[in-house]
Amino acid sequence: MGGRAASAAIGQAVLGIDGGLLPLDPILTEGVADTNGDMQYPLEIVFDYDAVSDDLLEQPPLPGMARWAPLLPPLADISLGEGGTPLLAGDHLAGLLGTDVELHLKDESRNPTWSHKDRLNFCAVSSALLARAPGVAVASSGNHGVSAAAYAARAGLPCIVVTSPKAPPTFLDMIRAYGAAVVITPADRRWDCLMRIVRETGFRPVSNLTRFHTSAAPGPEGYKTIAYELFHQLGRRVPGAVVVPTGYGELLFGIAKGFDELQRLGLTDRLPRMMPAEPEVGAPLAAAWHSGRPAVEVPVGPSSAASIASPVGGYRGIWAMRRSNGAPLTFKEETLLAMRGALAHVGLFQEMSGVAALAAIKDAVAAGMDFDGPVVAILTSGGFKDSAPFDGAHPLTGEAELARLLKEATDG
Amino acid sequence: MGGRAASAAIGQAVLGIDGGLLPLDPILTEGVADTNGDMQYPLEIVFDYDAVSDDLLEQPPLPGMARWAPLLPPLADISLGEGGTPLLAGDHLAGLLGTDVELHLKDESRNPTWSHKDRLNFCAVSSALLARAPGVAVASSGNHGVSAAAYAARAGLPCIVVTSPKAPPTFLDMIRAYGAAVVITPADRRWDCLMRIVRETGFRPVSNLTRFHTSAAPGPEGYKTIAYELFHQLGRRVPGAVVVPTGYGELLFGIAKGFDELQRLGLTDRLPRMMPAEPEVGAPLAAAWHSGRPAVEVPVGPSSAASIASPVGGYRGIWAMRRSNGAPLTFKEETLLAMRGALAHVGLFQEMSGVAALAAIKDAVAAGMDFDGPVVAILTSGGFKDSAPFDGAHPLTGEAELARLLKEATDG
Repeated sequence: MGGRAASAAIGQAVLGIDGGLLPLDPILTEGVADTNGDMQYPLEIVFDYDAVSDDLLEQPPLPGMARWAPLLPPLADISLGEGGTPLLAGDHLAGLLGTDVELHLKDESRNPTWSHKDRLNFCAVSSALLARAPGVAVASSGNHGVSAAAYAARAGLPCIVVTSPKAPPTFLDMIRAYGAAVVITPADRRWDCLMRIVRETGFRPVSNLTRFHTSAAPGPEGYKTIAYELFHQLGRRVPGAVVVPTGYGELLFGIAKGFDELQRLGLTDRLPRMMPAEPEVGAPLAAAWHSGRPAVEVPVGPSSAASIASPVGGYRGIWAMRRSNGAPLTFKEETLLAMRGALAHVGLFQEMSGVAALAAIKDAVAAGMDFDGPVVAILTSGGFKDSAPFDGAHPLTGEAELARLLKEATDG
Repeated sequence: MGGRAASAAIGQAVLGIDGGLLPLDPILTEGVADTNGDMQYPLEIVFDYDAVSDDLLEQPPLPGMARWAPLLPPLADISLGEGGTPLLAGDHLAGLLGTDVELHLKDESRNPTWSHKDRLNFCAVSSALLARAPGVAVASSGNHGVSAAAYAARAGLPCIVVTSPKAPPTFLDMIRAYGAAVVITPADRRWDCLMRIVRETGFRPVSNLTRFHTSAAPGPEGYKTIAYELFHQLGRRVPGAVVVPTGYGELLFGIAKGFDELQRLGLTDRLPRMMPAEPEVGAPLAAAWHSGRPAVEVPVGPSSAASIASPVGGYRGIWAMRRSNGAPLTFKEETLLAMRGALAHVGLFQEMSGVAALAAIKDAVAAGMDFDGPVVAILTSGGFKDSAPFDGAHPLTGEAELARLLKEATDG
């Protein structure tokens, strides 16, 4: 599954604080507290870009992220064939947004566990294995837990997933299928519970250990590969904007950093505007952005976008917007629901959170925002994962009602 | 999503009967009865291989099957980015089979509706749209119905899915999400019901209309692309065998025909042994093979491989085995169940039917069969689709039981 070239990683650095270069080992898992002590800055991996061959980014974006090894943290041989997802476009998408912007959809439901999280966990679990961690642990009610469980299984490591009583059963079934242990605890206990697991076992946490999201540096680097793939799939163009379903902001960060690297390597001349899509009923990144703070906590109302309705943002998302002249977007619940149906009716069935980017673009257009140039919306996960059954256009019918159905079909 | 070159298709022909070349239009949907009238021979698309450029097969196997357009029936612009699925291999698979054969897994759960059926329906629904059919209809309790509904949605065509009372709810939810109508009728009524729909509406059937599987020729041609991709992914080697979860034999046929074309085009010198994997409790292809008949009907006992437990085979599967020196394989129910768990425990969670090929290889090895050269097992569909929840290794636990869990984890 692609090349086995060495990583060009040379250390870790704190994002947003000029703290110099930290060694690559040990990987820091708790972030770095700011001077007030009430917020933790995340870390990133630093690379020696002079050691990266110019033609690394010229290869076709096939599955198997090891092909990008020089620009990723050190990898173990645990690929599940992640990445290489299609970019979809066409006139059939014109009706989705109510604007004639050139829209491209990156379908991340085509990953090994059917969400974007596989790009993160390939890197995060690799790092755990290379550091000889005895296992991995993760706090997640959804895709992250599923994906961590799969990569832990691939790596031969035990995995514990801390989840909440509200986690959809589909996720729990999948997590357990991969052999992971599931601990159910109230949402406000999850960080304490995860911290206890990590301290008592030495397991590597592959999600945030602390309230403000500061998952260890290796994982989010995996999302850079989406930028590398987009560069090819758009014919070496940089899109005007990339809109991203956002809970903690790691996906937004990773894609932004990937485009930043494309510019550093001389392949492009700018970044796309990076735009998180958050539920209007919460939206911690938008709140942090507008307040000028690195991260905040907000109350969150009921949202059907369960996988991204987070009370806390993280500085990674703010960094991505600052670096790219980005801006936060939010979406209304009713827009999300309608968009999920509209997208399924052109053949793409996504998890409710998976259509957040499209819903946010639609609401932004309705509010008068212009999008220049090609816009990429990231679709993050398959629609079969939501617990609520989808309300189809047609009721189930028996053969006795066939005559009516056929009359409708032929009249229609 | 790939090239827009013209199809090199020049007509239809009956598989197994020397009936000459039939025109490409109209597409025949009922097969051709044999002289006894109790069996229908399927059709295939005939191509002018002299019109196919040598370098068509030299491109990387990215998603978007339109890239193979010259070797497919005429296509409409309705791609969902199907194909381009990864081929997985590695030492971690060694424990699955109890033999040291070089094993490769083709993960077809990475398609747009998360099964191999998308390759068929891209071609079948294209054909319906190009023929100006007012809709599509399909008899299916599973992946075929989901995929047909998605491509019909993409094409802007109404879709009716005839299914049985036993169809798993996940499939019904997905079919309805794409906007299709679902008609539930007893299994023995399905062909009559589908025939009535087709006759009263003019909808194009994209599955078999008759008892012995004779779905129209365009669809199964789509499966040829798996052979084209394998050719690249194996470094231009022809595998020793390709083992395929098999209900009606269309997937087996398509892959065999793809390898047949690679040989015709001078790129290879032989076909892999094509081997269907059927439930031991049914296995109509095995029964037809051993009796020397083109297709038979058999009683089917209870099987957890719901998507492939078929009472009827089809001649396409027999053709594939004859053309390739193949042979039928069967699997025991207990092997299937164990294999599903073993595969998830190396990070790949498949539908019960999706691991049929691996289970059949394991049972064949246990019975003394040797497999020469690389063996490819096709994994057909994601594990989230089965209705029965997966029986995880660990029970769900609350935080109160965390101490015990951690003790287990640290004791190793």
